Amino acid sequence: MRRLALTDLDKSVREWFVAEVKRYGCSVKIDQMGNIFAIRRGRNNDVPPIGIGSHLDTQPAGGRYDGILGVQAGLEILKILEETGTETHAPLAVINWTNEEGARFTTGMLSSAVWAGNATLQEAYDHVDSEGLTLKSELERIGFLGDVEASFEKNPLSAHFEYHIEQGPFLEDEEKSVGVVTGVQGMTWLMVNVVGRSQHCGTTPIDRRSDALLAASQMVSRVNEIAWENKGVTTVGVFRSSPQSPGTIPEEATFIVDIEHLSNDTMDQMTVSVRESIEAIAKKHGCTIKIEQTWRSAAVAFDEDCIGAVRDAAILHAGKDGFRELPAGAGHDSVNTSYKCPTSMVFIPSKNGISHHPSEYSTPEHW
Amino acid sequence: MRRLALTDLDKSVREWFVAEVKRYGCSVKIDQMGNIFAIRRGRNNDVPPIGIGSHLDTQPAGGRYDGILGVQAGLEILKILEETGTETHAPLAVINWTNEEGARFTTGMLSSAVWAGNATLQEAYDHVDSEGLTLKSELERIGFLGDVEASFEKNPLSAHFEYHIEQGPFLEDEEKSVGVVTGVQGMTWLMVNVVGRSQHCGTTPIDRRSDALLAASQMVSRVNEIAWENKGVTTVGVFRSSPQSPGTIPEEATFIVDIEHLSNDTMDQMTVSVRESIEAIAKKHGCTIKIEQTWRSAAVAFDEDCIGAVRDAAILHAGKDGFRELPAGAGHDSVNTSYKCPTSMVFIPSKNGISHHPSEYSTPEHW
Repeated sequence: MRRLALTDLDKSVREWFVAEVKRYGCSVKIDQMGNIFAIRRGRNNDVPPIGIGSHLDTQPAGGRYDGILGVQAGLEILKILEETGTETHAPLAVINWTNEEGARFTTGMLSSAVWAGNATLQEAYDHVDSEGLTLKSELERIGFLGDVEASFEKNPLSAHFEYHIEQGPFLEDEEKSVGVVTGVQGMTWLMVNVVGRSQHCGTTPIDRRSDALLAASQMVSRVNEIAWENKGVTTVGVFRSSPQSPGTIPEEATFIVDIEHLSNDTMDQMTVSVRESIEAIAKKHGCTIKIEQTWRSAAVAFDEDCIGAVRDAAILHAGKDGFRELPAGAGHDSVNTSYKCPTSMVFIPSKNGISHHPSEYSTPEHW
Repeated sequence: MRRLALTDLDKSVREWFVAEVKRYGCSVKIDQMGNIFAIRRGRNNDVPPIGIGSHLDTQPAGGRYDGILGVQAGLEILKILEETGTETHAPLAVINWTNEEGARFTTGMLSSAVWAGNATLQEAYDHVDSEGLTLKSELERIGFLGDVEASFEKNPLSAHFEYHIEQGPFLEDEEKSVGVVTGVQGMTWLMVNVVGRSQHCGTTPIDRRSDALLAASQMVSRVNEIAWENKGVTTVGVFRSSPQSPGTIPEEATFIVDIEHLSNDTMDQMTVSVRESIEAIAKKHGCTIKIEQTWRSAAVAFDEDCIGAVRDAAILHAGKDGFRELPAGAGHDSVNTSYKCPTSMVFIPSKNGISHHPSEYSTPEHW
């Protein structure tokens, strides 16, 4: 699955989603970030709706479950409530959050962040993709630039639940059907730019070089060691060098470091270590560097009552040995909603722990 | 200077070159590789011409001297011979060799190789650039697909001299005006493809990954150590990974290793070490690899008589302390001509030893 945010494919799935929820009697609200709220009325419509949200955008070479399953789960709930004629206490909102992946406009969970006040509308609108197209113009182009203010204050929720694949190995390893998610680990992104000196590769002795790619490679390797030393994770997923010529020592390399940990303190300490290591390696190679922190999402703990609701349901359906509690390793829109309303998540096992890859899979018995 | 082979800019400079040499009374032969031979008749036109050749194509972000100076030197010689009405013993050929840099069609010295029988015409025509355009169709498009067979046998030279910037630091360091080039170091290119497993970066523990970019980074670092250990040079100038997403562990990385040494034996030994190291690192990361040797140009020794002619001229113009003998670190079309006719080269100093970069410079007093 390759459905990058606000592309023609994203437009199609959004139009399908809107048509589906209307079949189940929902009204549709679209906010200034293109977030879609499908509202099903309850007995008490003065109470803000209870949200069931996730995202329909994917990685460049992603799977068919990450995000999508959570929105589909919302549709399934709407369908069953309609078929059984069930009226709920509060209204429900099934939500598709825009640009969760941050694959096209490179801040993850961007539109729930604006809704939660963790990013400004202007910051979000300033994002451009690799072709130079802005997020706002793309929202407009596909017809999903709504007029509802993207904020909790103007468009509140009573709670937010998100159903998601684990994207990791623990549930499968321990043969659990359900994960009760207690919080989310923190994430920091550093954008690193290394500049050396482009020279002819055959004639420049090995001791007289300032090779930006070599320096960057050693940085990538050191960044990995820092993860092992701190029992966290670090990843370099974006990496580019120039010029791309077999006869020329690379002048420049740019990469993004992702640093994640359950403890904000450890994450921040890892970030300092990464910066210091990169500076030391650059110095050794005579390269200049720029390091910019482009994103930081603090580790969060979910709401005890919401965790309890998920735990009770897990015991009911999977038995008391059929689930485990665990923190989420990845960022989710629920991180942002947790700043504004009680939140928790439900995980199901991922085959081989794989996600962000076409082989991503979860069995129907766990859906 | 960014004048990649067979682009519109290359077409312009070729048309300019043809117009210039016609002003000096030359006839023009264009062969099947687009190599341009500007022939000035001598007293004995049964003798094959003495060639003065280099190239007008450049690196993606190159300088204004590499290659260009050698063709300009040929024009300067034509101009002076015409102005002074000088008749030479043999005819002269001022030559522009096609795609020397190998930056667009990624084999360096490609068209002199076909002329020398070191590559077949078909191999050369099969080259495609990064957009999928073939070398042959681009030759045709810019009007430089000639009908002279690209071979020494059908289009012979009596000798080949090439005037070139050193592209290294030695002449400048030792305050010499001229380098008498005794031969060229050998070069081997390996194309390496590393495949790991694309997974979500936040949820995949650090001990359960198969990260192609991390593995490739460690390979780049190890390849550099092999240069130090063997007193040669190695460079990774082309490097790409995918997918490019900050949230995903890279599945694939591809890079080109350039290995160079004055001794063919040591070069081949270094190539074995590079292969073994890459295999070991891939194994450690659970990655699969493909390694393909895409090019090997053996170290060559130039002709003693041609070296002697350059040495005599150097003593005459720079004095016996004004020059030094040295091997060339880079590949040149003269490597190919040396297989077919007596060959040598003349070097002049490069400022700070820099080449393949816009700051490449040599002073007019050395031209």
